[in-house]
Amino acid sequence: MTETDHGHRELDRLIFFSDAIFAIVMTLLILEIRAPDNVPSDVAATEVPNLVWALWPKFFSYVLSFLVIGTYWIAHHQTFRYVRSYNRTLLWLNLVFLLSISFIPFPTDLLGEYGELRFSVIVYAASLGMARLLLAMVWWYIVAGPIRTGDELDPGLARYHFFRSLAIPALFFLSIGISLVSVNAAVASWLLLFVADVMMWRLQRRRVRSST
Amino acid sequence: MTETDHGHRELDRLIFFSDAIFAIVMTLLILEIRAPDNVPSDVAATEVPNLVWALWPKFFSYVLSFLVIGTYWIAHHQTFRYVRSYNRTLLWLNLVFLLSISFIPFPTDLLGEYGELRFSVIVYAASLGMARLLLAMVWWYIVAGPIRTGDELDPGLARYHFFRSLAIPALFFLSIGISLVSVNAAVASWLLLFVADVMMWRLQRRRVRSST
Amino acid sequence: MTETDHGHRELDRLIFFSDAIFAIVMTLLILEIRAPDNVPSDVAATEVPNLVWALWPKFFSYVLSFLVIGTYWIAHHQTFRYVRSYNRTLLWLNLVFLLSISFIPFPTDLLGEYGELRFSVIVYAASLGMARLLLAMVWWYIVAGPIRTGDELDPGLARYHFFRSLAIPALFFLSIGISLVSVNAAVASWLLLFVADVMMWRLQRRRVRSST
Amino acid sequence: MTETDHGHRELDRLIFFSDAIFAIVMTLLILEIRAPDNVPSDVAATEVPNLVWALWPKFFSYVLSFLVIGTYWIAHHQTFRYVRSYNRTLLWLNLVFLLSISFIPFPTDLLGEYGELRFSVIVYAASLGMARLLLAMVWWYIVAGPIRTGDELDPGLARYHFFRSLAIPALFFLSIGISLVSVNAAVASWLLLFVADVMMWRLQRRRVRSST
Repeated sequence: MTETDHGHRELDRLIFFSDAIFAIVMTLLILEIRAPDNVPSDVAATEVPNLVWALWPKFFSYVLSFLVIGTYWIAHHQTFRYVRSYNRTLLWLNLVFLLSISFIPFPTDLLGEYGELRFSVIVYAASLGMARLLLAMVWWYIVAGPIRTGDELDPGLARYHFFRSLAIPALFFLSIGISLVSVNAAVASWLLLFVADVMMWRLQRRRVRSST
Repeated sequence: MTETDHGHRELDRLIFFSDAIFAIVMTLLILEIRAPDNVPSDVAATEVPNLVWALWPKFFSYVLSFLVIGTYWIAHHQTFRYVRSYNRTLLWLNLVFLLSISFIPFPTDLLGEYGELRFSVIVYAASLGMARLLLAMVWWYIVAGPIRTGDELDPGLARYHFFRSLAIPALFFLSIGISLVSVNAAVASWLLLFVADVMMWRLQRRRVRSST
Repeated sequence: MTETDHGHRELDRLIFFSDAIFAIVMTLLILEIRAPDNVPSDVAATEVPNLVWALWPKFFSYVLSFLVIGTYWIAHHQTFRYVRSYNRTLLWLNLVFLLSISFIPFPTDLLGEYGELRFSVIVYAASLGMARLLLAMVWWYIVAGPIRTGDELDPGLARYHFFRSLAIPALFFLSIGISLVSVNAAVASWLLLFVADVMMWRLQRRRVRSST
Repeated sequence: MTETDHGHRELDRLIFFSDAIFAIVMTLLILEIRAPDNVPSDVAATEVPNLVWALWPKFFSYVLSFLVIGTYWIAHHQTFRYVRSYNRTLLWLNLVFLLSISFIPFPTDLLGEYGELRFSVIVYAASLGMARLLLAMVWWYIVAGPIRTGDELDPGLARYHFFRSLAIPALFFLSIGISLVSVNAAVASWLLLFVADVMMWRLQRRRVRSST
C-alpha cells in the first residue's frame, strides 16, 4: 500500500464516519413520532385516525429536518469531493459540525410539540443555521488552510462555494428576526431554503459543468 | 486518483449512505416492541408469557416490514448496479425515496397496535406502496435521464425492470381497495408480494443470466 | 471497471449492509437500560446507587448479548471471507439471518426484566440459537450451492466449519432442556459458549494457519 | 484478488464496523434528551423555555460524551493506521473496547440526571476511563504482539503513543479521587482532558511530521 493509498483510506474513514452520523440522525427523527397508545378498541376506528392527523406538526418537522439535513449531507458531499488530505484540525472541525448535526433531533422534537411557540422556532432556526455555518467554516478551513485540494478547485469557485454556503445560515438567522413579528411567517420562510438551494444550484451549473 | 475513480468514490458514498439508512430503519423496527413492564413477580410466570404472545400483531408487522424493506434494499441494489454517474437530480430523487423508507417505522407501529382497523391497513399500504413507487421513479430517471449506465443494460431489460418495479406498488394500492371490503383480506394480499417477487425473479432469470 | 470489480463492489455492499445491522443491534442494546427516573434529590444520594445496582440483570443480559452477537459477527466475517460471488438466494438467506439478529434486543430485554422466569430463558436461548443456526445454513449454501468460493477453501475445512457452527445452536437448544430442571443452570451453561468458542478456535489454528 | 487485497478487505471491515459503532453511540446520546411533554398551551410560552433551560445538565453530559467519544474515535483512527494484519485476539480486544464504548450512553444519562451525585461522577469517570484504557491495551497488543505494522512506526513512537494513551484514563481515574473531596471539581477536571489532548498533540507534532 503506497503512502497515497494510505491517506485515501483514512480520508475515506472520515467521510464514511460523517455519512453514518448523517444517516443515523435522519433515521432517528421518525422515532419521535409514536402511534397513539392505548386507544380502547370500541372507539379506535374513529379516534385513531383523529389522533394520527393531530400528529401533523410532528410529521411536518420530521420531513423538514430530514430534507434540510439531506441538503447538508449533499453539501458535505460537495465539500469533501475536493479534499485530498486531512489533519487534526479538520478532524475536529468536522467533529464539531457532526455534533451540531447530532443535536437536530432535539429542536425537531421541540418544533413538533410546540410549533406555535416563538421559543421553539428560534431554537430550531438557531440550531439548523449554526450547523450549516459550521459546515461553511469547514469549507473555509479546507480552501484557506493547509489541506491539499484537487486541481479542479479554482480560487473563484472556492470563494463562490463559501458565500453560497452562507446563504442558508443567513436565512435561518433572519427567520429568528421574522419570528419576533410572526411565528408562522418564520416557519414559511424556511421553505424558501429549498427554493434558494435549487436557484443557486442552477446558477452554479452555468459556472461549472456538472460531474455527470 | 483519476477522474473516473473520483466519480466512483462519490457514487459509492451515495450507495453507502442509502444502505446505512436501510440498515438503521430495519433495525429500529424491533425497538417498537418492548418486553412487558412491571409485572409483579408472583404472577410473572403465567402473566409474562401471555403478555408476550399478545404482542403477536407487533411481531407480524415487524417481520413483514423487515422483509418488505429487505426486498426494497435488494431492488435498490439492482437499480444502482447499472449506474455509472450521478447528478443532483438523482441525489434528490434518492433522498426523497430514503425519506419514504425512514417513514416506515410509523405505519409499522400503527399496524402493530391497531391492525384490525381499516385506517392502519390503508396507511401501511399507502406508505409502503409509495416508497416502492419512488424507487421505480429513481429507476425511470436512471434509464431515461442523463445518467450514464453500464453497457450491459439494454433498453428491453430496462423497460422490463421498470414494469416489474410497478407490480409491488400496484399490489399495495390494490390492497387499499380490498381493505374497503375486508381488512383481513387486504393484509393477506400483502403476502402475495413475496410470491410475486419470487415469480418475477424466476421470469427474469430466463431473460438474463444471473451475475453469479 | 471490469466485470470482476463490479461483482466485488456488490458483494462489498452485501457485507457492509450486514455489518451495519450487526453494529446497530449491538449498540441499541444499551438503550433498554435507562438511568433511574425522578428520584427526589433528598434521597438520591442513597437511592440512585441502589436503583443502579438493581439493574444488574439488565447489564448482564446486555453484555451477554453484545458478546454473543460479536461472536456471530466474527463468524459472519469468516463465512464471507471465502465468498467470491453471490446470488439472490444468498441475499435472501443472509436477510433472514439478519432478521434473526435484529430480533435479539427483544429477548435481551425480556431476559433483563424477567431473568428468573423459565419462559425468558427459553425465548432467549431459542432466539440466539436460531440466529446461529441460520448463519450455519448460509455457510452450508455457500459451500454446497452455486456460490464461487476462494481456492483456499478445501472441502475438509468447509465441512469442519459447518460442524463447528452447529456447536453454538446445539448448546443453546440444549440449555432449553436444562432450563426445565434449573433456570440458573441454563443461564450458566451459556457461559460455556465462550469457552467452547475459544477451544474450537485453538483446534482450528492447528489445522489452518491464521491469516496474520 | 490477491492475498494482500483479501487481508485489506477484512481489516477494512473491522475498521468500518468499529466506526459504525462509534457513530451510532454518538448519535444515540441525544435521544436521552426529550422535549418537555404535555405542557398545557396556556402556560407553554413561559413554561417550555424554563423546562428546556432546566435540561442544561443533560446537554452538558451529551456534549461532553460526544466530544470524548470523538477523541477516542480519533485515537482509534490513529491506532489502526499502522495496522497491516489482524488476528482473532485483536478482533476480541477491539470487541471488548467497543462494548465499553457502547456502554457510554448509560453513564451519560446518569450524569445528566444526577450530575450533583458523587455516585454518578464516579460511574461516569470509571466508564470513560476504562474505555480509553481498553483502547490503550489494543494499542499495546498491536505493537507488542504478532500484528504486522507499517514500517513508519518506529519503536520510540510506539512507546510514546502508549504512554500518551494512558494520560486520559489516568486523568479520569484521578477525578474519582477528586470527587471524594468535591464533585464539581471532579467534573471540572474532565475539561482538562481536552487541554491535555491539544497539548500532547502539539508535542507529538514536534516529533513526527503530520500526515497532511
